Amino acid sequence: MNVENPSSALEVTQALIRCPSITPEEGGALDLMESLLKPLGFNCHRLLFSCSDTYDVDNLYARLGTAGPVFGYGGHTDVVPIGDADAWTVNPFAGAVVDGKLIGRGAVDMKGSIGAFVAALTRFINSRSSFDGSISLIITGDEEGIGINGTTKVLDWMTDKGERMDVCLVGEPTSNDKLGDMIKIGRRGSVNFNLRVRGIQGHTAYPQLARNPVHPLVAMLHNLLAEPLDSGTEHFPPSSLQVTTVDVGNAATNVIPAQAQANFNVRFNDLYSSEQVEAWVRERLSRAGFDYNLTVRVSGESFICPPGPFSDLISSSVKTVTGLEAVLGTTGGTSDARFIKDYATVAEFGLLNDTAHKVDEYCTLQELDDLSRIYQSMLEGYFKV
Amino acid sequence: MNVENPSSALEVTQALIRCPSITPEEGGALDLMESLLKPLGFNCHRLLFSCSDTYDVDNLYARLGTAGPVFGYGGHTDVVPIGDADAWTVNPFAGAVVDGKLIGRGAVDMKGSIGAFVAALTRFINSRSSFDGSISLIITGDEEGIGINGTTKVLDWMTDKGERMDVCLVGEPTSNDKLGDMIKIGRRGSVNFNLRVRGIQGHTAYPQLARNPVHPLVAMLHNLLAEPLDSGTEHFPPSSLQVTTVDVGNAATNVIPAQAQANFNVRFNDLYSSEQVEAWVRERLSRAGFDYNLTVRVSGESFICPPGPFSDLISSSVKTVTGLEAVLGTTGGTSDARFIKDYATVAEFGLLNDTAHKVDEYCTLQELDDLSRIYQSMLEGYFKV
Repeated sequence: MNVENPSSALEVTQALIRCPSITPEEGGALDLMESLLKPLGFNCHRLLFSCSDTYDVDNLYARLGTAGPVFGYGGHTDVVPIGDADAWTVNPFAGAVVDGKLIGRGAVDMKGSIGAFVAALTRFINSRSSFDGSISLIITGDEEGIGINGTTKVLDWMTDKGERMDVCLVGEPTSNDKLGDMIKIGRRGSVNFNLRVRGIQGHTAYPQLARNPVHPLVAMLHNLLAEPLDSGTEHFPPSSLQVTTVDVGNAATNVIPAQAQANFNVRFNDLYSSEQVEAWVRERLSRAGFDYNLTVRVSGESFICPPGPFSDLISSSVKTVTGLEAVLGTTGGTSDARFIKDYATVAEFGLLNDTAHKVDEYCTLQELDDLSRIYQSMLEGYFKV
Repeated sequence: MNVENPSSALEVTQALIRCPSITPEEGGALDLMESLLKPLGFNCHRLLFSCSDTYDVDNLYARLGTAGPVFGYGGHTDVVPIGDADAWTVNPFAGAVVDGKLIGRGAVDMKGSIGAFVAALTRFINSRSSFDGSISLIITGDEEGIGINGTTKVLDWMTDKGERMDVCLVGEPTSNDKLGDMIKIGRRGSVNFNLRVRGIQGHTAYPQLARNPVHPLVAMLHNLLAEPLDSGTEHFPPSSLQVTTVDVGNAATNVIPAQAQANFNVRFNDLYSSEQVEAWVRERLSRAGFDYNLTVRVSGESFICPPGPFSDLISSSVKTVTGLEAVLGTTGGTSDARFIKDYATVAEFGLLNDTAHKVDEYCTLQELDDLSRIYQSMLEGYFKV
């Protein structure tokens, strides 16, 4: 894969899209990144992590400079599968441009961001002889998958090597309706619960001889839904509990079933840790006065990097390029920012998210170019050049 | 099929069990009944009913005498399937006697009762030259099935012909622990509901863009379960609502589902009609303030024939033969008594119900003989001989 003009966000992004890097395939994407970063002076470390439980993952850590402060960028070259191949209007790995749109898997999530950042880097570095500080990139090959051998292990490796970042921009697609309308400075946590209640099967005509597990399950779910967890905080919407399924599977209308179960998900804000959410849940389940079995799976803790110089820098760069006042938000699903926040002041900013993971994922050429200019403005502002 | 001694409840019942009359097969059972009743002087009418919706059913109406009062007997010769054939210790259609027990399909539900009644009739009629009144039998071939061409159509036919009954004994197995411990003078009604709630599917991370149908369903079910329908009446236990299933079938923990449904059954006492139960249910569902779709299927209305001369007659006959004080109950599932109660004072009394519909269904020879003597005592008491 060759990029004629690495100052072009479009050309870099097209080259990345042409690497079929569906998780956990490297697909040539990290090789391409090395070929673009090395000429700029970056030291590149390919980090192949493996463990007995899951697939191997190839990752890249690259750094230019040795002094502080360190401006970091976090991204992923892996993409989700294409879904229904026949539904795409173009080859999802061709990097096709149609009517001013770049269409392809990863266009917004998030090869477009990486392309925009590499092009911004290229212009930034080529336009000056030096700058005070360092620039580092963490590029993982497993953000869309299970994530065990991805960013978390790169961060462990960095700690071992004494590598650090002061700030880190994560290039996830955060914009909603227009490029620049939202920067994310935190994320809600997420925890999934499976609730099972056992009873004693019997005939509906003789309920006194049975013990209907559906009734205490309904009481427990009612207790969970009776009052909201909270009403939101300064930077977060209210925590949300959603019952995603209830299943008994008893087709016989004259039979009281033996077991009932439900799944529910809690997205929680910075008022809670996942342990506190679990305690909140168990307290309400226990009120029903009936035995239950609860399985708890934590997807991520909530975090917030409160507004400060780094979010101000992104906001002013957005304003300069687009004229928009970005909202500092915390909505949406999880990203690798939840790991990086323990190592640096982190914020996320990228393209529009509405076509992410869908057929005909795309960004406009204007959005891609504007994003690259915002990223360049951030670098210039950060290093005061 | 030949019965050497029709005064023997055992012999008549064995002959009936040997007719493989699984609903809707006549299996020779009604022919056998005719061969036993005609020699006693009964006029027999075979009534084959059919309609386009379901299977044909053969029924028997038999009457001895033309004057009133009319003592009626209601029964069914059809039986449920044998289930696991290998699990039976004897041929279920052989009428085997093992260790003082008559084992076979229909032994208690309810060929045993018919055998006991025919033997009682035979002894009663043979022991006197005449009696003041009539004796009528409704024997259907479809009580265990859908019941469309069974007892209800015999009752219609009787109305057309000017045939009536003053009292009617239904021979369902009503005894619980000992023969004679319970007479049933009514039954609860039963109505089945299917409740569906539609929402708008979405991602659990963005609940504001979705509408979770599980939450209003939980609220509706909670409203239904929050307070009992009543606390019982003089002859009935409390009405009972049992949620038999809740089903969403959504395996994705990050998806808010589009639809949720539940089934529930209400067994209701003489405080309600099924329409009143439905109104009670709808009032509580509506409190949740969310649209719902409710399907209602009525299995039967509640009814009661208050204690009086007929239940006294059964009680005193039970006391004479067994020494027990029978309880006048209303528990359990439905029977054809729910149709007959509109035409006559009805009560149900028969063998023990614990093996009904099961493998190795049986009654003891002692129970069968005692039941036949109770029935004979009732005939003697009713006709004051």
